[in-house]
Amino acid sequence: MAGTGEKTATFAMRPIGFVRTPYRETKEIPKGLGAQHEAEGTLEIDPSLEAGLQDIDGFSHLYVLWLFHRAEGFDLVSRPPCDDRPHGVFASRSPRRPNPIGLTVVELLGREGPLLRVRGVDMLDGTPILDVKPYLSSVPEARLRRGWLVDAEERAREKGGG
Amino acid sequence: MAGTGEKTATFAMRPIGFVRTPYRETKEIPKGLGAQHEAEGTLEIDPSLEAGLQDIDGFSHLYVLWLFHRAEGFDLVSRPPCDDRPHGVFASRSPRRPNPIGLTVVELLGREGPLLRVRGVDMLDGTPILDVKPYLSSVPEARLRRGWLVDAEERAREKGGG
Repeated sequence: MAGTGEKTATFAMRPIGFVRTPYRETKEIPKGLGAQHEAEGTLEIDPSLEAGLQDIDGFSHLYVLWLFHRAEGFDLVSRPPCDDRPHGVFASRSPRRPNPIGLTVVELLGREGPLLRVRGVDMLDGTPILDVKPYLSSVPEARLRRGWLVDAEERAREKGGG
Repeated sequence: MAGTGEKTATFAMRPIGFVRTPYRETKEIPKGLGAQHEAEGTLEIDPSLEAGLQDIDGFSHLYVLWLFHRAEGFDLVSRPPCDDRPHGVFASRSPRRPNPIGLTVVELLGREGPLLRVRGVDMLDGTPILDVKPYLSSVPEARLRRGWLVDAEERAREKGGG
């Protein structure tokens, strides 16, 4: 931690491993409305941290916190790929965030030592991992509202004449 | 970013705001099996970042990424409050993590400028916020396996004679 006070403090994060995925370029990653993330990949956790994976095998799904390591700077408002209207960065999954942390829910398929085979990766190959956590519970679908994404979806449908 | 190579690189994170919650001490926060997080709180986003909240009001639920700012160091394996057996840090929500990032799903109750009133806080008052993201979809309950938590729950039930 460095800085001159609570408001300006910064905190140093260090990767606990790296993700192997089929995606070498951002444009290969499915994005936008109804994008399916079925791609398989591997969370390669640093072997020195392997003990931290004890009992992880019993969970079907995991949260992966990772770094948008190619993002530089941030935009408070921007136009996402799935809409023609601008939205705030905290109401979107834009990589250009004040703290460039990504969050992905993956399904755990298997483990070999410090390697976790998972389904549902949507990050670039070589992405640094900051943390892995068990996924414990879901918000029931009936209680979810998805804001501008629903509006964008409707506009896209109207445009498509579907 | 600092460090001598990809594997040792560190990344600096800066709070985008702070959480106001009813909890002044860790022991006041409901923990363990079946803990209900219904407490209300406020995400006080830095006013200079307020534009980043545009259109967030349409989402019913948000992910809050935050710092375990009182945690120092980490344990790869530890005994959580809700079980008498040790588990790996990446299979638990322990605050003593290699990167001390917390993740909480909250329900958005209302917004006034840079202040987001939310339900479901489980962090200490004054906790630094790293990021806020829209909660877009859930894993269906029927597909979830919750590993050692279910075993611990069963053992607790047997112990309680219930």
